Amino acid sequence: PVEIGVGMIGHGFIGRAHSIALRKLEWAATVPSLRPRLVAICGRDGAATESAARRFGYERASTDWRDLIADPAIGLVSNGGPNGLHAEPTIAAARAGKHVLCEKPLGRDADEAYEIWTAVARAGAVHMAGFNFRFFPAVALAQRLIADGALGEIRHFRARYLQSWLVDPAAPVTWRLDGAAAGSGALGDLGSHVVDLARHLVGEPAAVTARTATFVGERPGGHVDVDDAFAATVAFEQGAIGTLEGSRVAPGRKNQLAFEVNGTRGSLAFDQERMNELQVHLPEAPEAGEHGSAAPAGMAAAGFRRVLVSEQHHPFLAQSWPAGHTIGWEDSFVFEFEHLLRAIGDGTQVGPLGADFEDGYRCAEVCDAIARAARTGTEQQISYRDLDDHT
Amino acid sequence: PVEIGVGMIGHGFIGRAHSIALRKLEWAATVPSLRPRLVAICGRDGAATESAARRFGYERASTDWRDLIADPAIGLVSNGGPNGLHAEPTIAAARAGKHVLCEKPLGRDADEAYEIWTAVARAGAVHMAGFNFRFFPAVALAQRLIADGALGEIRHFRARYLQSWLVDPAAPVTWRLDGAAAGSGALGDLGSHVVDLARHLVGEPAAVTARTATFVGERPGGHVDVDDAFAATVAFEQGAIGTLEGSRVAPGRKNQLAFEVNGTRGSLAFDQERMNELQVHLPEAPEAGEHGSAAPAGMAAAGFRRVLVSEQHHPFLAQSWPAGHTIGWEDSFVFEFEHLLRAIGDGTQVGPLGADFEDGYRCAEVCDAIARAARTGTEQQISYRDLDDHT
Amino acid sequence: PVEIGVGMIGHGFIGRAHSIALRKLEWAATVPSLRPRLVAICGRDGAATESAARRFGYERASTDWRDLIADPAIGLVSNGGPNGLHAEPTIAAARAGKHVLCEKPLGRDADEAYEIWTAVARAGAVHMAGFNFRFFPAVALAQRLIADGALGEIRHFRARYLQSWLVDPAAPVTWRLDGAAAGSGALGDLGSHVVDLARHLVGEPAAVTARTATFVGERPGGHVDVDDAFAATVAFEQGAIGTLEGSRVAPGRKNQLAFEVNGTRGSLAFDQERMNELQVHLPEAPEAGEHGSAAPAGMAAAGFRRVLVSEQHHPFLAQSWPAGHTIGWEDSFVFEFEHLLRAIGDGTQVGPLGADFEDGYRCAEVCDAIARAARTGTEQQISYRDLDDHT
Amino acid sequence: PVEIGVGMIGHGFIGRAHSIALRKLEWAATVPSLRPRLVAICGRDGAATESAARRFGYERASTDWRDLIADPAIGLVSNGGPNGLHAEPTIAAARAGKHVLCEKPLGRDADEAYEIWTAVARAGAVHMAGFNFRFFPAVALAQRLIADGALGEIRHFRARYLQSWLVDPAAPVTWRLDGAAAGSGALGDLGSHVVDLARHLVGEPAAVTARTATFVGERPGGHVDVDDAFAATVAFEQGAIGTLEGSRVAPGRKNQLAFEVNGTRGSLAFDQERMNELQVHLPEAPEAGEHGSAAPAGMAAAGFRRVLVSEQHHPFLAQSWPAGHTIGWEDSFVFEFEHLLRAIGDGTQVGPLGADFEDGYRCAEVCDAIARAARTGTEQQISYRDLDDHT
Repeated sequence: PVEIGVGMIGHGFIGRAHSIALRKLEWAATVPSLRPRLVAICGRDGAATESAARRFGYERASTDWRDLIADPAIGLVSNGGPNGLHAEPTIAAARAGKHVLCEKPLGRDADEAYEIWTAVARAGAVHMAGFNFRFFPAVALAQRLIADGALGEIRHFRARYLQSWLVDPAAPVTWRLDGAAAGSGALGDLGSHVVDLARHLVGEPAAVTARTATFVGERPGGHVDVDDAFAATVAFEQGAIGTLEGSRVAPGRKNQLAFEVNGTRGSLAFDQERMNELQVHLPEAPEAGEHGSAAPAGMAAAGFRRVLVSEQHHPFLAQSWPAGHTIGWEDSFVFEFEHLLRAIGDGTQVGPLGADFEDGYRCAEVCDAIARAARTGTEQQISYRDLDDHT
Repeated sequence: PVEIGVGMIGHGFIGRAHSIALRKLEWAATVPSLRPRLVAICGRDGAATESAARRFGYERASTDWRDLIADPAIGLVSNGGPNGLHAEPTIAAARAGKHVLCEKPLGRDADEAYEIWTAVARAGAVHMAGFNFRFFPAVALAQRLIADGALGEIRHFRARYLQSWLVDPAAPVTWRLDGAAAGSGALGDLGSHVVDLARHLVGEPAAVTARTATFVGERPGGHVDVDDAFAATVAFEQGAIGTLEGSRVAPGRKNQLAFEVNGTRGSLAFDQERMNELQVHLPEAPEAGEHGSAAPAGMAAAGFRRVLVSEQHHPFLAQSWPAGHTIGWEDSFVFEFEHLLRAIGDGTQVGPLGADFEDGYRCAEVCDAIARAARTGTEQQISYRDLDDHT
Repeated sequence: PVEIGVGMIGHGFIGRAHSIALRKLEWAATVPSLRPRLVAICGRDGAATESAARRFGYERASTDWRDLIADPAIGLVSNGGPNGLHAEPTIAAARAGKHVLCEKPLGRDADEAYEIWTAVARAGAVHMAGFNFRFFPAVALAQRLIADGALGEIRHFRARYLQSWLVDPAAPVTWRLDGAAAGSGALGDLGSHVVDLARHLVGEPAAVTARTATFVGERPGGHVDVDDAFAATVAFEQGAIGTLEGSRVAPGRKNQLAFEVNGTRGSLAFDQERMNELQVHLPEAPEAGEHGSAAPAGMAAAGFRRVLVSEQHHPFLAQSWPAGHTIGWEDSFVFEFEHLLRAIGDGTQVGPLGADFEDGYRCAEVCDAIARAARTGTEQQISYRDLDDHT
Repeated sequence: PVEIGVGMIGHGFIGRAHSIALRKLEWAATVPSLRPRLVAICGRDGAATESAARRFGYERASTDWRDLIADPAIGLVSNGGPNGLHAEPTIAAARAGKHVLCEKPLGRDADEAYEIWTAVARAGAVHMAGFNFRFFPAVALAQRLIADGALGEIRHFRARYLQSWLVDPAAPVTWRLDGAAAGSGALGDLGSHVVDLARHLVGEPAAVTARTATFVGERPGGHVDVDDAFAATVAFEQGAIGTLEGSRVAPGRKNQLAFEVNGTRGSLAFDQERMNELQVHLPEAPEAGEHGSAAPAGMAAAGFRRVLVSEQHHPFLAQSWPAGHTIGWEDSFVFEFEHLLRAIGDGTQVGPLGADFEDGYRCAEVCDAIARAARTGTEQQISYRDLDDHT
């Protein structure tokens, strides 16, 4: 198979997840026509980056992302750096002829995301935004059921992404709590996932109302100028309404990205803490007559089904383990990279299954609207710019 | 024990639940000092009302609520009629010297609720609004834990009340879908419960943003001019933020009043469909050293506890069955009436455990604010009138 | 409607549950042709019995069950006394021409149960054994699904009934821990429910192996000579195999009667602590082709359904509350008495929906076999005596 | 780090899982002092084995396990072949000076397992039996809690391992259904896991009673001479009693290894289908006085905690993802191999955390006793041979 050199920006949380995913692809049963070659990994701390390079098998380490851009052996740049380092390296990589994966949120605001999208698209790169929840088998099953009409027309979407790592007021400031570096707090970090799933499953948000809160304004290391939590209502272009929430101060909720969709025919619900499951409610046929009839169950046995999404006929799992042998969070990145490598190698589309940079930009428009709505107390209509908008 | 004559307005859903609760009080182990005597029940359909009277043991039936008001044997009027019949009979009863229980929502809007509250309060009656969820043992345990500080300061409240009975577009119009009779749709019917619990558990809402939707505007029997669903964000006076939702078009959600509260120390969650349970997350002590130490569990075993609220040390259950023998929805009304009869007979307060008409009025202010916010797209600050406001 | 006078033996736990059920029948929507008249209640403690009589509305109290037998106004005797007081009063009642309900277990062993059954049957009485779990709507739905063939041929039944009230070694001795009074411990008390459900749902047990354990042999008040727990394997006449368990020393399990049935087509599971739910797994059709086809869900969405058994088309609930408004443990006795009164008044059969004394006797044969198997370490084949056996 | 050459026997289900685990160790943060070098993989089908070698990065493929034994570059042989191919290669490997990991069950019966254990132990090899469930973080947490005394003395253990892949009578015969190749059916395959966990968590079984069943005796491809399911009661040497079950014909149960442990102080429960969770019930302190006291929660909030075992202070997860980012089934093998490589490289012990061949042998004694008990209908006492027994 043909190789594509990968340059990884960042070796922390996401850089590690991406690196592991690339390595796992070595033994994927269904090999994409492109196989990743781990050329270089980049980070600010030289020794730590060297260590990460050895650990994950990169050929070399660097402390300057420009090295990666300049390297002709690299055909794909994966940007897992902090939000404030998304734009410049990603755009530079595309302009240098490389394909790009950029972690979410694409930019710190819609303007930056728009700039990234349009510059990269004009450069002709294949681009993907790192909304990895789309690559959870249970989420992909949800998307398929909705797309196939099993739920009818969608009327409600409610989602929340709750974490607890800022409950403790002694938790120190990091770049994630710095508005200049991160853009926003729970909104951009957790809310962008929620908004992306809303768009993926239901369609474009048309308007929002919202509020945000910062409960702990001073932490060891400095001032916090981003939100700890947000809450929003949303109206979709196709008519559904719902709520979107995110918080980093919810005790006991370790990583609860949970959503529910209600349609005219059925409902479904997901909770990332039980990532191999999807709750599905579908219409059951009325009972076909008296007891003892041919179709005895039906309405009497209607209820939410706990679908253990671990069968080989479920999304992404054709080559996985036998039924009931579940996968972990990091596997979502394997499916994400496999999808991207097919797009690059075979010319398939990143969307609508994966999120491209237009998705990343549109998500940012919604997050910006939520921030504006919270600031102004006024419902914000959302309009989306085209590739060639001169706004 | 001293008797108090009860006059019941309505013999449908709520009238039946109230009547059963009154009868169940006959064998309550801890007798309130007042015992109810079922004097009269009132409804529009004479034959059906006669039948209900016989069934539940009322001494007589009537088709005119004024009969009940005029009856000196009646000391307590319970108004379980449609929303549009709350104000006049309730006020008349109080003015005739009777105590009053009025089903929620107290009025069709805040003005009407304010009128009911102030008129009844000035008449000197004991008054209670029928927010029966306060009398679920699991909800009362939640309230007690919060009041005792087990959760610390509250930062989030999110609640939803989902039903499915209007999913089918062939479901006909009833008074509940008629704005003149009901005031609003899911908002007043389901949302009032959600708002009352928000106030009961967290405190006064200070501001809301919101939207509503009517998905099926024409049904057999006529036009629908109330909301099928609403979604709101809320800010509380004490600083918490959250979301409030209600819908009658959520397939598979039969009667899901579910809420979650996150504080600085812990969280709790409730779902009416599992009404005997409360999920509680409390801080666990760090592990006290090495394995084999005296306190081996602790943080390692932290998690949401599924509390089966069925012990005799749980609220309202001191005289109930042994642990694990659960109760049903209708029992909440038994505890509600027992509380009211104590208030009337012993001079105890309806609030803060129960909801009085001021609570009913304040709830209506919040619901009105939600409706206004949805109509205007603008955040609504909520102000509450005092008993003597001349607004 | 015609009245039948009821004499109640016992006013403790079960006597109270029975009395409440009889009172609740007053307002049952579908009146059995016989209405209960609460004539007399009997207990050892005169003052307490008088108090119970007043509380539940019995016309009189007695400290001698023979008074009830002698009373011509009594047509139905309900025996809620300790196990050692089942045989004599029940037989005497039937011989005096009264119908009888006897709490489970019917006798302290199979011989006693056989004696009760045959004596009562020969006396011509309608007889019912108090296996109230059959009257849980979820259990009745399970029974209906199995009877209708929805699960195919049954291959496995596994059940356990776990409580925790004897975890504390300081819990004192009661009659339930005295072999002479109770017959056995967890086996007869909890195991009899498990065995009855096994018979009700699957069919006759043919053989068992087993063991029992008494973990705390001395308690305040004396020696314990019954089992704290038992465990058994079972083979059914129709071919299924499974396990049966019971324990009074399982921390955290307040009243967990849980069972699971696996058939050739489906499975179902129940847990009394969530008594309004039944988990049901039924075969789903294979997906009917490509995405976008007419039947998009199917296998991909197969899973255990959480059926909230609260619809009016569910067993016993035709006159109950709207969907999602659940019932409590004590309601099972209402359905049980309603069934019994129909049998007495209308000549319908107690079985197979309800358990009659033959069921009570057969259950005792299984429990005896479990005890023998535990004692001997040898599999026990179970044979059942007919009404006219001269064994 | 020092390398150890690995020879893998089998490239199917388990061989694949083992190979992936070895590869994942390349990027483990805490490197064992020994690093695996994938030297050779062996299988019967030459082309498939070549393909597996390429896929997982083995230096060469072979169709004869003797090649691996003869290869001086190989220091560790992992035997993932069918049960009938466990003894000879494993013993030969040890005698050739290699360390060995053998998949469960160790032998097809106790005699074969004893032979493997004693031959390998005498050869001086480090040996490990592939009971990977011990390396689930939730199971390891359970073991730690029990070992630390958090549950007190254990009184009950009940476990079941249910699958559904033989529900369909058209499922063909494989080696797993052939007594000569597999030894037994559900008993050896699923039951061995259950028995190993019983021993790991509670201690040595002392006696069993049991039954087995084969529901489908003829399948496409031939006769089935092993059990589809078994059920057993067990008594432990330390006094606990319980049940053990396994079945391959349980619709809807994809891979449900579920167990519950009850002690004198607490209980815990696990279900492999939710492998990142452990349910834990621990004693809560009585409430410390009136409401408003310093310790407001306590008994009132007692319940089973849903512990999401995903924190870095949980077993094996010190280097894993942030809280709430769960792992998958295959990760258990990573922890298993890491443990083994430490034992080989650092001289630490395989047990008691891991299972060595003595554990594999003892497990087989219990399984044999279950089979004998089922065959004879008589309780079987279990005695365990020492390394030097001359039985």
